[in-house]
Amino acid sequence: MRGGIGQGMRASGHTGAEGTKGAAEEAESLAIVETYYYTFASEEPFETEGGETLSPVTLAYETYGILNAAKTNAILVLHALTGDAHAAGWHEGNKSPGWWDSMIGPGKAFDTDRYFVICSNVLGGCRGSTGPSSINPRTGKPYALNFPLITVQDMVKAQRHLIDHLGIDRLLSVAGGSMGGMQALQWVASYPERVRSVIPIATTATHSPQQIAFNEVGRQSIMADPNWNDGNYYDGEPPARGLSVARMVGHITYMSDISMGEKFGRRFKNSRSSFKFDPEFEVEGYLQYRGENFIKRFDPNSYLYITKAIDYFDLVNGRGLQEVLRGVKARFLVIAFKSDWLYPAHQSQEIARACKRAGVEATYAELNSTWGHDAFLIEVDQQSHLVKHFLKKVMASA
Amino acid sequence: MRGGIGQGMRASGHTGAEGTKGAAEEAESLAIVETYYYTFASEEPFETEGGETLSPVTLAYETYGILNAAKTNAILVLHALTGDAHAAGWHEGNKSPGWWDSMIGPGKAFDTDRYFVICSNVLGGCRGSTGPSSINPRTGKPYALNFPLITVQDMVKAQRHLIDHLGIDRLLSVAGGSMGGMQALQWVASYPERVRSVIPIATTATHSPQQIAFNEVGRQSIMADPNWNDGNYYDGEPPARGLSVARMVGHITYMSDISMGEKFGRRFKNSRSSFKFDPEFEVEGYLQYRGENFIKRFDPNSYLYITKAIDYFDLVNGRGLQEVLRGVKARFLVIAFKSDWLYPAHQSQEIARACKRAGVEATYAELNSTWGHDAFLIEVDQQSHLVKHFLKKVMASA
Repeated sequence: MRGGIGQGMRASGHTGAEGTKGAAEEAESLAIVETYYYTFASEEPFETEGGETLSPVTLAYETYGILNAAKTNAILVLHALTGDAHAAGWHEGNKSPGWWDSMIGPGKAFDTDRYFVICSNVLGGCRGSTGPSSINPRTGKPYALNFPLITVQDMVKAQRHLIDHLGIDRLLSVAGGSMGGMQALQWVASYPERVRSVIPIATTATHSPQQIAFNEVGRQSIMADPNWNDGNYYDGEPPARGLSVARMVGHITYMSDISMGEKFGRRFKNSRSSFKFDPEFEVEGYLQYRGENFIKRFDPNSYLYITKAIDYFDLVNGRGLQEVLRGVKARFLVIAFKSDWLYPAHQSQEIARACKRAGVEATYAELNSTWGHDAFLIEVDQQSHLVKHFLKKVMASA
Repeated sequence: MRGGIGQGMRASGHTGAEGTKGAAEEAESLAIVETYYYTFASEEPFETEGGETLSPVTLAYETYGILNAAKTNAILVLHALTGDAHAAGWHEGNKSPGWWDSMIGPGKAFDTDRYFVICSNVLGGCRGSTGPSSINPRTGKPYALNFPLITVQDMVKAQRHLIDHLGIDRLLSVAGGSMGGMQALQWVASYPERVRSVIPIATTATHSPQQIAFNEVGRQSIMADPNWNDGNYYDGEPPARGLSVARMVGHITYMSDISMGEKFGRRFKNSRSSFKFDPEFEVEGYLQYRGENFIKRFDPNSYLYITKAIDYFDLVNGRGLQEVLRGVKARFLVIAFKSDWLYPAHQSQEIARACKRAGVEATYAELNSTWGHDAFLIEVDQQSHLVKHFLKKVMASA
């Protein structure tokens, strides 16, 4: 194991260890990784965009690769609505790799032989970072709805504390898909001098009414569950059914008409039931299974807070995105997918156009994919090619 | 008032009456109309496709215009998921016109000066026809989940009883949008000799996994509401919140990205609330309002049964739609809308292609509209032009 530099910067090296995966795959993947936790409770408490305060604030994060001496090779990778800090490699005793393991590792798009990759969980979340399920130090109980409303700007502000802590002055890149892309855009809007490049994928600069509407359905579904109990369920049964329906809606929007057709067709499940409205079609069983399991890893109140933060997201905000971007030195690689109907390509085109209007260097790529919004997690080859080339160019221009 | 011919065939004439509408509009609209109810309880009880029996069966329906002596000018118009028999004109004391009033009336697409237009409610519904909220004669209580599962084929079979009762041997046309279009297609599949033409609009011959998935979310939402109580809520509080969320999902799928943007933008509602997760954006308020009001006119169990019938709908069913259509003499006018992502145009193209392959005369029209699936209720001018011309041609070829 190569030596790390400070908390959280222990490198995750290659592995020769036996695992559940074949040797060929293993050779290209990171080994066992760990999640770290950075807590800051400065003299001045963290102030949210809404004017409320929060202290202490903890962010869960992971790092992969080694930070170079000049600290010029750090890339911040940011996750979508229900993601977490575990972006790559494996956790001890767990067979599931990180959510972007196909993109982060030795020789991969975010090449850990070249770059120091950081993945930070979001403020408001429930995967190790401060959120509504965290203990409110004033009461000794979970915040629940006493947690302040947060925005994507707040998420990014908390991450800036983390990047400060890691001693990194300028990030080589900030990248992410979906809500991760919103955070990437917010980074360049909030801290333009701290970012050399941005890779927003399958995302938007302003959340549309349709996108708000889908999130609102999820929230209403959670709040309609009597177990939600105005957010106070941490001592009892959580609103699992409400969260399950919210997750089902989400899953539909992440896939495409075509990918659903290919995955399920109109096939029936094997087991038929005597109850009339039990799932009969495979697609129903899949959605119900995914919905019901979601409660095991996600806090319903976090779902409310994070979807709300997404809905507030609006870098355009009347004046136009190009005004936000004027004077920005960072380069952009904007990626969209043709079959993504949740964050349709025209929203990414709008980002690229705003860059041009603001005189910011931007590459726009619209990839053919039938995977819908999920494509940013699945279309590895095309994305890798674009990202690798882009990062090399940015790195070379240092 | 011109004389009618038998129950339900009383003509609704033009009106000169003062109303809430302007004279110009009034001159082109039907006056006060009434809903009729046809109940059949033959010696042989109605058998569903699933092999269960039902008796008696009532269908609510309305008629507009006059049936000619040869009974060759009858058009059956069929409604979508939450529609009813009230397609045109006004009910006494009610300011809302029928759901397709813009298309049905003197001089309109379905010209009541020329044609005798019938609109039938569906079996399984809750707007006057036999459904899960009807009294089960065996128990004296509402059927609830003892109501048999029904299919679109069952809906159409019940309508055939109504058409028999009206003494109509062959319908000039069967027309409808969305689920109404499925019924129109089913009419030609079940009773090809009874139909001279078909106008399926914004519909499909086979319900796709994505379409099933959206319906399943609605069902899960209803069934997750504790007030649903396994369908036994007729003596108490209905599952209004579950139904509301189901309706919200529906509304999103009926609109387009663009139409939502035009209607709501990212505008905030005027009234701000102290509760964090109250609707703030106009789109949220609209969906919540529409969702909450839905319980006033729709039975949650009917929502379960009808969505299930839609999900079962599959005229392709392995062998291909062209096999169903082979030998069919009816002409088709297939209409789709470019921005309809719930029933995308490629599904209508598939119907038109199957017609060609089966040697059935079909016209396919894909209309430019930004209204999404709702376009079949809104795009009056373009549809009227197509429908008028088509019906004249069919009528002339008698």
